[in-house]
Amino acid sequence: MSAVIKGIAASNGIAIAKAYRLDHPDLTVKQTTITDPAAEISRFDAAVAQSKLELEAIKARTEAELGADKAEIFASHLLVLEDPEFVDEAKNAIENDKVNAEYALQEVSNMTVDFFLNMDSDYMKERAADIRDVTKRLLTHLMGIGTMDLGSISEEVVLIAEDLTPSDTAQLNRDFVKGFATDIGGRTSHSAIMARSMEIPAVVGAKSVTANIVSGVMVVVDGLTGEIVVDPSADELRAYEAKRDGYAAQKAEWLKVKDEPSVSADGHAVELAANIGTPQDVAGVVANGGEAVGLYRTEFLYMGRDSMPTEEEQFDAYRTVLENMGGKPVVVRTLDIGGDKELPYLDLPKEMNPFLGFRAIRLCLEKQDIFRTQLRALLRASSFGNLKIMFPMIATLGEFREAKAILLEEKEKLVASGTTVAEKIELGIMVEIPSTAMLADRFAKEADFFSIGTNDLIQYTMAADRMNEQVSYLYQPFNPAILRMVKRVIDAAHAEGKWAGMCGEMAGDLTAIPLLLGLGLDEFSMSATSILPARTLIRKLSKADCEAVANEALDMDTAEDVVALIQSRIVTK
Amino acid sequence: MSAVIKGIAASNGIAIAKAYRLDHPDLTVKQTTITDPAAEISRFDAAVAQSKLELEAIKARTEAELGADKAEIFASHLLVLEDPEFVDEAKNAIENDKVNAEYALQEVSNMTVDFFLNMDSDYMKERAADIRDVTKRLLTHLMGIGTMDLGSISEEVVLIAEDLTPSDTAQLNRDFVKGFATDIGGRTSHSAIMARSMEIPAVVGAKSVTANIVSGVMVVVDGLTGEIVVDPSADELRAYEAKRDGYAAQKAEWLKVKDEPSVSADGHAVELAANIGTPQDVAGVVANGGEAVGLYRTEFLYMGRDSMPTEEEQFDAYRTVLENMGGKPVVVRTLDIGGDKELPYLDLPKEMNPFLGFRAIRLCLEKQDIFRTQLRALLRASSFGNLKIMFPMIATLGEFREAKAILLEEKEKLVASGTTVAEKIELGIMVEIPSTAMLADRFAKEADFFSIGTNDLIQYTMAADRMNEQVSYLYQPFNPAILRMVKRVIDAAHAEGKWAGMCGEMAGDLTAIPLLLGLGLDEFSMSATSILPARTLIRKLSKADCEAVANEALDMDTAEDVVALIQSRIVTK
Repeated sequence: MSAVIKGIAASNGIAIAKAYRLDHPDLTVKQTTITDPAAEISRFDAAVAQSKLELEAIKARTEAELGADKAEIFASHLLVLEDPEFVDEAKNAIENDKVNAEYALQEVSNMTVDFFLNMDSDYMKERAADIRDVTKRLLTHLMGIGTMDLGSISEEVVLIAEDLTPSDTAQLNRDFVKGFATDIGGRTSHSAIMARSMEIPAVVGAKSVTANIVSGVMVVVDGLTGEIVVDPSADELRAYEAKRDGYAAQKAEWLKVKDEPSVSADGHAVELAANIGTPQDVAGVVANGGEAVGLYRTEFLYMGRDSMPTEEEQFDAYRTVLENMGGKPVVVRTLDIGGDKELPYLDLPKEMNPFLGFRAIRLCLEKQDIFRTQLRALLRASSFGNLKIMFPMIATLGEFREAKAILLEEKEKLVASGTTVAEKIELGIMVEIPSTAMLADRFAKEADFFSIGTNDLIQYTMAADRMNEQVSYLYQPFNPAILRMVKRVIDAAHAEGKWAGMCGEMAGDLTAIPLLLGLGLDEFSMSATSILPARTLIRKLSKADCEAVANEALDMDTAEDVVALIQSRIVTK
Repeated sequence: MSAVIKGIAASNGIAIAKAYRLDHPDLTVKQTTITDPAAEISRFDAAVAQSKLELEAIKARTEAELGADKAEIFASHLLVLEDPEFVDEAKNAIENDKVNAEYALQEVSNMTVDFFLNMDSDYMKERAADIRDVTKRLLTHLMGIGTMDLGSISEEVVLIAEDLTPSDTAQLNRDFVKGFATDIGGRTSHSAIMARSMEIPAVVGAKSVTANIVSGVMVVVDGLTGEIVVDPSADELRAYEAKRDGYAAQKAEWLKVKDEPSVSADGHAVELAANIGTPQDVAGVVANGGEAVGLYRTEFLYMGRDSMPTEEEQFDAYRTVLENMGGKPVVVRTLDIGGDKELPYLDLPKEMNPFLGFRAIRLCLEKQDIFRTQLRALLRASSFGNLKIMFPMIATLGEFREAKAILLEEKEKLVASGTTVAEKIELGIMVEIPSTAMLADRFAKEADFFSIGTNDLIQYTMAADRMNEQVSYLYQPFNPAILRMVKRVIDAAHAEGKWAGMCGEMAGDLTAIPLLLGLGLDEFSMSATSILPARTLIRKLSKADCEAVANEALDMDTAEDVVALIQSRIVTK
């Protein structure tokens, strides 16, 4: 009899194949007293050296197959192996406590992991995951256990595992690993992100998959619903095969509009753009028919390293994106650091409410050397494509004027020194703070465009941290209060002949798109893989109908009312 | 030659007198090894017993002279002396480490203080201050140093101190201590709050007063500007005496409108109400001519104790306030706990962004036993005066409907059981979340009134934690975005025949009052001591002029523009 296990849908698609359960080797460490610390230390050094070689190989392979950004995690792992706080501490423990290398390593590892976990920051939690991954690798070498080579899988399987480490996912061969399911993890965990980027169907956080699934049994992983069907009946198998083929057909259908314009059934044209984090992401934008980059988050350039990126490094990245987009618009958001995105080399004060704190433009206006370096790199890159710049977290006109003045100052200096700078660079703002939405009519006189950042705008408007599970029910994109804010911003832009876009998650939501079209949004920026479904939908919609629905929605009481209205009046599939 | 030291104006008025520098005794602790731990422990016990007697006396005196709420801090101190984690730990250290009682005490004290300070909560920081104060008291007894008796000062002085502990301020005799100045502290530190409540002019956080002022020198403390003039010249002295007398005359002038109506020069009537925290505060409301209690913060009932207040305790407090207000309106805000206001017995999870977290109505709807107990106490008290109830942190209509349903349920149960409940209890909401201001027209159909909580509304609208110094420049009551929100709320209330009040700090600000009058605000709720200056001002203002100015302000770009407009067009003094 088949059984169904429910998890979190992490990557779209259906995988049907025999299970391959990844049993991690037993790495239980026993404490033993040693007599020759020097010999033990050289045993430890050998394990470090072997691990380095392995990591360098994995890093090179990942870089070649998935891009430099996906390989960054292995650079972090290599840094752990070079960190004296980690490596030397373990050696000291061997020397001073006369314990075996495995035990010394595990003690230091546990201490370091606890230390990072206590720091209450997502960045530090990732560091803890790095330490754990590296510790496992070192232990397999110390214990003489060969590392599991996922790259050697040579028949079609669905991978079943407690969790997949970055080292594991980097080795997956897409030809044979059709999908995976894990006990732990969430939609934003590393393995989930990798699955989406590799387009492998995946379900994570399914709690009991390793306990209930053995290698060899037939398994269906439904990345659309989050269901894992173990040992499906013949009927179920047929149904899932049909669903899998249907999804493949839908993907093929979507692909047909790749080079079509984003125009509603009644002839209203909008722009469908993509959010990106690194130059490597441009390939996905092009492959999915993106008409622009609507949000280039520049933070990644600054993260996972121990010093600021130089002006040259930034220039190279911006230029690459602009060139690879081939003259299509690229909206770059200046540094949005602080809040939950910390930089170890910036030494920012710990804040009681980081989401209401010293971050983004607030920090850039204070630490102008960082800001000016980024602006110079952008200005220098501007002649290589169609660059637009926007500032994050603008709350007052004063801030916008100050940021704009700094940009113009740097531009004049560059021009005076003979550097080529594009003549016209549109200058906009992220509208993600309620005060700015309220004063959008005043801002529209001075900014060239708006990009509504719904993720933050909703958090502030509802006064609810969406990362906080106890109040996440208040993260309501469809609340009429949010819709009214969005409408204010769009109307204000249009009244001054400017354009308004949106780069929050809402812009790619198929239920929200009809509303946003109805409200008059000009540009929708979303993850690259959402563009084709969005375009397919928009081409079927009537802008006039959407307008009527949006106007009704603005006068409703609750988010539930609005969703019900859309579902009753618009076909969104 | 005179010198001027600048600090933070903490309590209005001018004090002129000879300095009396409070030199705290040298409490440096030396570690010594002891041979008879039992004797040392009994010496420690004796110090504890003496301290308890002293604290009980101070508590009784404070209760009689300043009210029970001001005496609460000494109850906390007494709790420290009964806390086994503190007292027994010190004794254990004496016993185990064979150290003197002073050293053992100091070690335990430092550890406990560090522990509290690391908890990153204002409540815990106050606990650290309690521990320090109690430790000092114990050390003076252990060292045989007599406690400085501030009650024995018998000539007019200005007190100069590094800081004043709650124990110090409780002993101040207003007949002789004309004012004080301290090196440390801010406007919301304990000594500043006490100074305002005792109406003693004070400047705090002046950094170098103890270093630069010796006892006996003539000193002026200007609590209006935050200046301390040391050894003033004859001319300066005359000028300050004139200013002091002018302030006294102004206070007398204000007092003349105590029983006058709050009506503008052109005949528009508003209500001037007070914010209170405890039943004892009602005396100040009456003395200052308050027409209502516009905000009764019920949190104090729940704080500084180790279990929930019972329904009976709450009922007594609410009934006392209603009765002592003699039929005038009392708006009670239901429990606004969570965020920075923690309750040790509630065990709430630590949050990344407590201001955007699980607090106020969000918590009450989840922990309904707490909420229902409070509502029953309120309903039972309702027949003893003119009660209105409002819910804090309402973000959606769904929340309001749920809270209202719970209230009606409890009311029906009480009525069914034969309890007298007032027939009409107005039910309103705090408007302090942007979404609620945006949807005020929908809320106005279901709520009886609005009270705009500007402190939070400004924080969320500007996305800036005003406690965070690096972004406190964004706390802008005069930003046109805030004024537009306020206008939306007032207009929405009036369209449905409801009233709109304000209970944030803005409502008592003399520069803001003309704007708010112009926007049509019906009720202004402020600290009791602000009521008479506010009424004096309003009686001179023309509502029509204020309306014209407010309308201009709504279309301005920045807070600075608005302040300049008011200053150029309205006389606010």
